[in-house]
Amino acid sequence: MMSAQHNYCYSSITSKALFPCCSIQSYNPNSRFPSNICVLYSSVVGVHGVYATSRKNKKKKEGFKVEAAVSLGEHEVEKLLDTVKWDDKGLAVAIAQNVDTGAILMQGFANREALATTISTRKATFYSRSRSSLWIKGETSMNFINVHDVYLDCDRDSIIYLGKPDGPTCHTGMETCYYTSLNALLPDSKVEQNKLATTTLYSLESTITQRKLEVAETENEKPSWTKRLLLDNSLLCSKIREEADELCRTLEENEDKSRAASEMADVLYHALVLLAVKDVKVEDVFQVLRQRFSKSGIEEKSSRKST
Amino acid sequence: MMSAQHNYCYSSITSKALFPCCSIQSYNPNSRFPSNICVLYSSVVGVHGVYATSRKNKKKKEGFKVEAAVSLGEHEVEKLLDTVKWDDKGLAVAIAQNVDTGAILMQGFANREALATTISTRKATFYSRSRSSLWIKGETSMNFINVHDVYLDCDRDSIIYLGKPDGPTCHTGMETCYYTSLNALLPDSKVEQNKLATTTLYSLESTITQRKLEVAETENEKPSWTKRLLLDNSLLCSKIREEADELCRTLEENEDKSRAASEMADVLYHALVLLAVKDVKVEDVFQVLRQRFSKSGIEEKSSRKST
Repeated sequence: MMSAQHNYCYSSITSKALFPCCSIQSYNPNSRFPSNICVLYSSVVGVHGVYATSRKNKKKKEGFKVEAAVSLGEHEVEKLLDTVKWDDKGLAVAIAQNVDTGAILMQGFANREALATTISTRKATFYSRSRSSLWIKGETSMNFINVHDVYLDCDRDSIIYLGKPDGPTCHTGMETCYYTSLNALLPDSKVEQNKLATTTLYSLESTITQRKLEVAETENEKPSWTKRLLLDNSLLCSKIREEADELCRTLEENEDKSRAASEMADVLYHALVLLAVKDVKVEDVFQVLRQRFSKSGIEEKSSRKST
Repeated sequence: MMSAQHNYCYSSITSKALFPCCSIQSYNPNSRFPSNICVLYSSVVGVHGVYATSRKNKKKKEGFKVEAAVSLGEHEVEKLLDTVKWDDKGLAVAIAQNVDTGAILMQGFANREALATTISTRKATFYSRSRSSLWIKGETSMNFINVHDVYLDCDRDSIIYLGKPDGPTCHTGMETCYYTSLNALLPDSKVEQNKLATTTLYSLESTITQRKLEVAETENEKPSWTKRLLLDNSLLCSKIREEADELCRTLEENEDKSRAASEMADVLYHALVLLAVKDVKVEDVFQVLRQRFSKSGIEEKSSRKST
């Protein structure tokens, strides 16, 4: 591997095998690559070294400097790239997925170089078929997708980039590129346009948020249960404590599994209303959980000490 | 639309615009199509009518009968299919995603016929490029993916089948086809093989389940916090009640957003341990939520009454 200066680095080297490079914390919006990453290409693999740089002096806007090199060797990266079954055009489908919510952010194609760049830079990178060139998602919008892990399917011709987006993924400003339900395209459809493809928990979150917006408009009508909870903190908190208690009693009183699932659903629903009142997104909660329970987190540390 | 006999139908017509056909509840494993679906092809669109059949007499194994026809017209389906930007081979990427967990189940390709069949049968259907034929996922394994909604991306060349799988999606018996982390392929990797691509909540669930399996093995060692909770129902329930109370206090005492997210993370973590003790999966809880809060559910009904 390449040598590098180690003058100052304000981001720590991660312990992950695949992504040992520095985490990247700032960018130069005028450069094609994030200004604190300097990618060196090999003729075979695409990328075989990535330098992370940081400001020598945080007060100075200029003066970036090469700081640390990644430890993943050319041979190792090549071996990974050989694992993929590239199609006759040298491509594989690459799907970017939000590591916290599970939302499918976008889908593109990757060639060897794109996957190599993703591995090295931790930024989801694709091959643009229309422009016949590499495309780091976020290189113009700054909305990078920070890849935590890469998965192959059983046929090894389909890739998931599991990561965290810096902002909306779609060029339209939508959170993901999937906001067109076929239902909405039918004539006389009552399904709203621009409805994101959301899974159960986020559909519920979205419904509750909608009710919160409607609360002001329906002053003279009998409010729905969700609206009543949104308007009455005391009722909401008493329900949360009650449902948590009922969840516990499914264990204490040895109730059946379906009862436990149902009580947990009650806890979740009422807690989601509280989060809506507090203007906290479920995604933020999962981010807290991930940071706590990821391999470098509390759970891992405490299990290492004791088991 | 076609006419059909309406002698007896044990599944109700759904109200969804895109999927107005009967929900399907039983299959004949020897037929290419589920035995209670009879698909009629049009030369242009692929499918323009689907008949759902049911047993006239539940005690008889044979004697299926045409029961009800779907109401989606040929013109409407064609219009939907025209919306998709098919590539030069007439294909688009189709990704099947679990509507409750967000897990990406598999990725294939769809042509007009495959998408038409998906719309009509509610079973995720692909075009097999190797066999040059239509392929209803589950036609041999019976592990169908029951599609609830279909989404297109901003370019309209990528499709999500959002649905609920009847069983494991992968032909290997794994829950999804994405169980190969690139990390696991590195030499000297400590990442386990066959580790499903899971998002935050399910990674945590999986860790807790793992701790539950280890509990018996580590009798003489000081257990981790998770193991202590798994072993002590009284401690676990007191923690759940305490954390629910602390979540409420973030509202009652007007604490900041990050505190609410953190307390909610505590509630979730401890509740996940209880679910593990009760052998209940998070996915089951979300299924309860979906059934309760989907458009035909309580929330919708109560909001229709009151707003």
